[in-house]
Amino acid sequence: MQWAKVLGVGVGAAAFLGLGIILGHLAIPKGADPLVSQDLDLEVLNSVMGQLEASRIQENLRELSREPHLASSARDEALVQLLLQRWRDETSGLDAAETTTYEVLLSFPSQEQPNLVTVVDPNGNVFFSCRQREENLTGEQGGPDVVPPYAAYAPPGTPQGRLVYANRGSEEDFKELWTQGIELNGTIALTRYGGVGRGAKAVNAASYGVAGVLVYTDPADINDGQSLPNETFPHSWGLPPSGVERGSYFEYFGDPLTPYLPATHSSFRLDPASASGFPPIPSQPIGFEDAKVLLCNLQGNLAPDTWQGALGCDYRLGPGFRPDGEFQADSQVNMSVYNRLELRNSSNVLGIIRGAVEPDRYVLYGNHRDSWVHGAVDPSSGTAVLLELSRVLGTLLKKGTWRPRRSIVLASWGAEEFGLIGSTEFTEEFFSKLQERTVAYINVDISVFANASLRVQGTPPVQSVVFSSTKQIPAPGRGGLSIYDNWVQHFNRSSSVYGLVPSLGTLGAGSDYAPFLHFLGITSMDIAYTYDRSKTSARIYPTYHTAFDTFDYVDKFVDPGFSCHRAVAQTAGSVLLRLSDSLFLPLNISDYTETLRAFLQAAEQDLGALLGQHSISLGPLVSAVEKFEEAAAALSQRVLALQESSPDPLQVRMLNDQLMLLERTFLNPRAFPEERYYSHVLWVPRTGSVATFPGLANAYSRARDTAPGSAAWAEVQNQLSIVVAALEGATATLRPVTDL
Amino acid sequence: MQWAKVLGVGVGAAAFLGLGIILGHLAIPKGADPLVSQDLDLEVLNSVMGQLEASRIQENLRELSREPHLASSARDEALVQLLLQRWRDETSGLDAAETTTYEVLLSFPSQEQPNLVTVVDPNGNVFFSCRQREENLTGEQGGPDVVPPYAAYAPPGTPQGRLVYANRGSEEDFKELWTQGIELNGTIALTRYGGVGRGAKAVNAASYGVAGVLVYTDPADINDGQSLPNETFPHSWGLPPSGVERGSYFEYFGDPLTPYLPATHSSFRLDPASASGFPPIPSQPIGFEDAKVLLCNLQGNLAPDTWQGALGCDYRLGPGFRPDGEFQADSQVNMSVYNRLELRNSSNVLGIIRGAVEPDRYVLYGNHRDSWVHGAVDPSSGTAVLLELSRVLGTLLKKGTWRPRRSIVLASWGAEEFGLIGSTEFTEEFFSKLQERTVAYINVDISVFANASLRVQGTPPVQSVVFSSTKQIPAPGRGGLSIYDNWVQHFNRSSSVYGLVPSLGTLGAGSDYAPFLHFLGITSMDIAYTYDRSKTSARIYPTYHTAFDTFDYVDKFVDPGFSCHRAVAQTAGSVLLRLSDSLFLPLNISDYTETLRAFLQAAEQDLGALLGQHSISLGPLVSAVEKFEEAAAALSQRVLALQESSPDPLQVRMLNDQLMLLERTFLNPRAFPEERYYSHVLWVPRTGSVATFPGLANAYSRARDTAPGSAAWAEVQNQLSIVVAALEGATATLRPVTDL
Repeated sequence: MQWAKVLGVGVGAAAFLGLGIILGHLAIPKGADPLVSQDLDLEVLNSVMGQLEASRIQENLRELSREPHLASSARDEALVQLLLQRWRDETSGLDAAETTTYEVLLSFPSQEQPNLVTVVDPNGNVFFSCRQREENLTGEQGGPDVVPPYAAYAPPGTPQGRLVYANRGSEEDFKELWTQGIELNGTIALTRYGGVGRGAKAVNAASYGVAGVLVYTDPADINDGQSLPNETFPHSWGLPPSGVERGSYFEYFGDPLTPYLPATHSSFRLDPASASGFPPIPSQPIGFEDAKVLLCNLQGNLAPDTWQGALGCDYRLGPGFRPDGEFQADSQVNMSVYNRLELRNSSNVLGIIRGAVEPDRYVLYGNHRDSWVHGAVDPSSGTAVLLELSRVLGTLLKKGTWRPRRSIVLASWGAEEFGLIGSTEFTEEFFSKLQERTVAYINVDISVFANASLRVQGTPPVQSVVFSSTKQIPAPGRGGLSIYDNWVQHFNRSSSVYGLVPSLGTLGAGSDYAPFLHFLGITSMDIAYTYDRSKTSARIYPTYHTAFDTFDYVDKFVDPGFSCHRAVAQTAGSVLLRLSDSLFLPLNISDYTETLRAFLQAAEQDLGALLGQHSISLGPLVSAVEKFEEAAAALSQRVLALQESSPDPLQVRMLNDQLMLLERTFLNPRAFPEERYYSHVLWVPRTGSVATFPGLANAYSRARDTAPGSAAWAEVQNQLSIVVAALEGATATLRPVTDL
Repeated sequence: MQWAKVLGVGVGAAAFLGLGIILGHLAIPKGADPLVSQDLDLEVLNSVMGQLEASRIQENLRELSREPHLASSARDEALVQLLLQRWRDETSGLDAAETTTYEVLLSFPSQEQPNLVTVVDPNGNVFFSCRQREENLTGEQGGPDVVPPYAAYAPPGTPQGRLVYANRGSEEDFKELWTQGIELNGTIALTRYGGVGRGAKAVNAASYGVAGVLVYTDPADINDGQSLPNETFPHSWGLPPSGVERGSYFEYFGDPLTPYLPATHSSFRLDPASASGFPPIPSQPIGFEDAKVLLCNLQGNLAPDTWQGALGCDYRLGPGFRPDGEFQADSQVNMSVYNRLELRNSSNVLGIIRGAVEPDRYVLYGNHRDSWVHGAVDPSSGTAVLLELSRVLGTLLKKGTWRPRRSIVLASWGAEEFGLIGSTEFTEEFFSKLQERTVAYINVDISVFANASLRVQGTPPVQSVVFSSTKQIPAPGRGGLSIYDNWVQHFNRSSSVYGLVPSLGTLGAGSDYAPFLHFLGITSMDIAYTYDRSKTSARIYPTYHTAFDTFDYVDKFVDPGFSCHRAVAQTAGSVLLRLSDSLFLPLNISDYTETLRAFLQAAEQDLGALLGQHSISLGPLVSAVEKFEEAAAALSQRVLALQESSPDPLQVRMLNDQLMLLERTFLNPRAFPEERYYSHVLWVPRTGSVATFPGLANAYSRARDTAPGSAAWAEVQNQLSIVVAALEGATATLRPVTDL
């Protein structure tokens, strides 16, 4: 709605169609179809929406998730061929499809020496062994291609020590144990997933002298407390007791050995021994079935209330086992981890639909292809949608009835699970070209977490095009309610500009959008269907990264009938078409203002007093936000005015360039020298609790307990100047181009 | 010639004029003059060439150099007003003119306590004092606004010690003294200008324990040996015995306290005590009249042959004075330096001529305004040209007979002499906007060093437009010979593509182009008239940075009649018009290939063997250069083909964007973390003697004496990968935009 209001485009674009065609006639490159529209064609849009079929997504998913397809495995390579074949199909393919292959450092458990976690007595007698594979409940958990649970990039080693329970393994958690006087040196720490990143648990543990880390998923965090075999998959969507979340424990993203360089064969590589970001100590994930045996036998103080879970016993801190339990009191936990690093080839698959009018403007749409096991939800639910969307667009293309104004690039990324590797290497290889030409990046990784509501994360300018799109698409199972109307019921906020609207989330580094946003400064978004948060508190869908994330799991529990998959395909497809076909880019840059105002208000409220005591004024920031707001509003007015005149192609291009490049102006590769890739001054990870400008917030957190005049307070002033300069630079690019 | 050959444009552009007008009709923004040409109009170009008047440049110079105008002085501010007035003139002004003001750290000698260099005996009796001001030979060297000679940013201090002679103060020079067993600790080192940068002399000296540095200009290096009063100014253009070269001894560029941030009032500033790049020890420049007294009385070993100069005595190394000379043998040199740092306001003046068709594409043309004293040559000869060019263009503009296709931005930079400060702050403030939109930066600082030949420094793509321009302009005093033909007689090289052509120099950091090229990656050039190198070996014009660089000096000795000033105005004006008005950008990106081939050949010949021994292959680099060559040639072919078709405005824009952004693709802000601002991987300063890829060459120099497998050899491989990645990224941007 606000898009239509501000720019008069979106669903109202038909009015410009006639003009578009007249102008377009002059702008069509030789050989292009003269019937190509110069603006979004609602008929084409509706036709695409109608042609997206749930059953075809279902069949795609069945094929994609038929076998485990771990990055660089034979099946992963077979799926590369499947994608190439689809995208080169003569009746439904794209203009071209290619692969780019990188030689990247992955981490695998040893096949000869499986990782093992045991309880042993001082003589080395083994009293208990954790499972080395998940239970074969559906016949799909036992094959040779099911990689056993492991912590990718955790170093090999065989630490042995008394067990402690460390909650989620955060800094605070270990500090709490230390405060309680628990000797951590040489212990094995049992932690549960959540709270902090995987690798961070090992980093925090090691800093207290812990020798090894076990990680499990507590039924309280994933199954709403349910933990019995008959309460869980295959009887429900719950995580079975033997299920183990695999994952990368690497702290950065991209190939670990080639930061900032594409991992070509000849590229310079760091010595793995000196590469950073790997967990410092052996780590291993286990199922809650095994975690229960360990945790429920611990001795020591009762863990704090917030540390308790749903394993059916009191969680104690250790160290070591209680004398009246299943194990001898002097028993220790032994971890035998035999992971190894391997250089492997991993491919991206890229497909292109050449733009008719502005072929040098790219709308990117991607998802990763690699999974931990069968990966039906993660990532194949997204790939299944991608393939269906490419089929429908490819068919229109091959029929000659449509060609987008701008180029569309579809991507299937490799080795995402190990740390967004394929997408990151791609951004490194094509840094300049992508930065100069990319309008936006759309990510659809897991397309359906659950069937309740849409969930979109993105930078503020995408709000408008997502809202326009979702207002036109019916929500599955809601009797004609639009996706937008259903969404606003589940996730909403009160906007000072628009009133009650769906709430867009912000983008961290959870999927392949990260290098596009943080490294290249490209407007990005991530689209999925998700939970009703009033009905579950699961941190993610229960079988995430386990061998139970299979086609039947999706078909029976996540999205029977695949209507939510179709809804995501329609949403992402509509966004894609609007971005690629609209004469004026449907990115409302004015929507950044609300974010900036909120950041500013938080800074004033929560940091202002102490900043003032240190003679640091927020005045320049207030002024910078005001100037940005003014320039953004004026630019939106100029877009409106131009739409009402008869704009020539260059005038439109110039305005669109201002819209496209806004996000780039927030990039400062020197702002955060210790953060690999993170250069976007508004979205670098924030550690503090105040939702404000992150560089400022982080510097403030580090400074707050230091003396006046410290280097840490100087850095606060520096970060304030960095964000002010970024905002003023952004404002300068939004102003009329001939303003001095 | 090669431009016409490759692209069929340049002087042959008339053929496209008709087409340009037809197309342009559709592309003209509302309100623009409908008579505006859509391509370079040779009639306008010839008219501009004809209207540029030598006598007006002369009058500009007389006014600009009437008074000393040190950065931030009252006269500097008065010239800001003069520029504003000219650029806002109703009949010959631009569309708009503004100032941007920064608060920057400058360095000045104390007025109360003038710097002093003396020879004293152990009891403190003064036997000799160096001049504190230059001799007032023309009545212009005595005023209160003539800043006494000093080394800007050299710290205050009063070191005293025995004198040594250290040649040019390079690392090798001090090593030679050390090898000869000369105790350097606590000495005062007398050095001559040249060889290494000003600040480097003090850095090198301090690393050997030297307590203070004196710097003088040897008549051998500046006057072709002449040193007598009646042989020098005002009797010739030679440097008088009392003349002293002032200068900045700051090692970086930009405001010293705000690296990477615009020096706005509120900006974060480093503590001056912790800012880097200042000379570590007191330094002071003196005239050769005084240097002679010091140097000719030294005792010790005879200095090496290459260290000898033209002061009429044998140069000895010291330490200390010989017993049979003018001073007691135990006399020492005392330096009293009272420089101080001051935050001062310094302004840039910016003027704009709005582009008619592509107002968001900028051609920048600039020069600094501040001088050390009267600065008739440096920088006012350039500013005089700038004002004459702006008068002619402004007059056409106000008459309504011309408006460029792209926007033209004229700039008068502040505080260049202290370290390119005004221009650097400008690039920091408008980083994104400039990087996104700037076609090229033209620098005309000193416009006339001498009257023999044109001299152009620039990146390879500017060669074509400079050649086209200079072939059409007669060289002063050469009876109809073109500037090009005169130039090729003075500076030439044998091109594998074009045969014998004028030789373009490369750009270091000697003037305001540095931040545009090295920090922003903008195609840049510096244009001047200069010496006949067969007639003088002067390192620069003799009165450089002295109080003798006056209007009369220029009028009598440098360019009587100002015909060379006019020739530079015509050259720069023609380049400016071609860049701003041509339908296709006259930048021949294929000309980068010759540079890359030469770099590659040098790497293979001079580094290849040792690289091979360390298992570092140049193969990927060879392949990257070949692919670049192919893509650049193909792009040139596409430009040709498009010119022969009827290109629509967007097609032209898209190709021009590829040409414009090529230079940007060579930028890697993470390639050289220790080099402030330098990000262009092909033009970062090179320390070794091999003219090859500089990052590779520098890493190689540091590695060559280290063991196999050292970190230094790893860095060689890293730098090789960095340049390969940059070339491959550049190639990707040159390829057809829809190539995957």
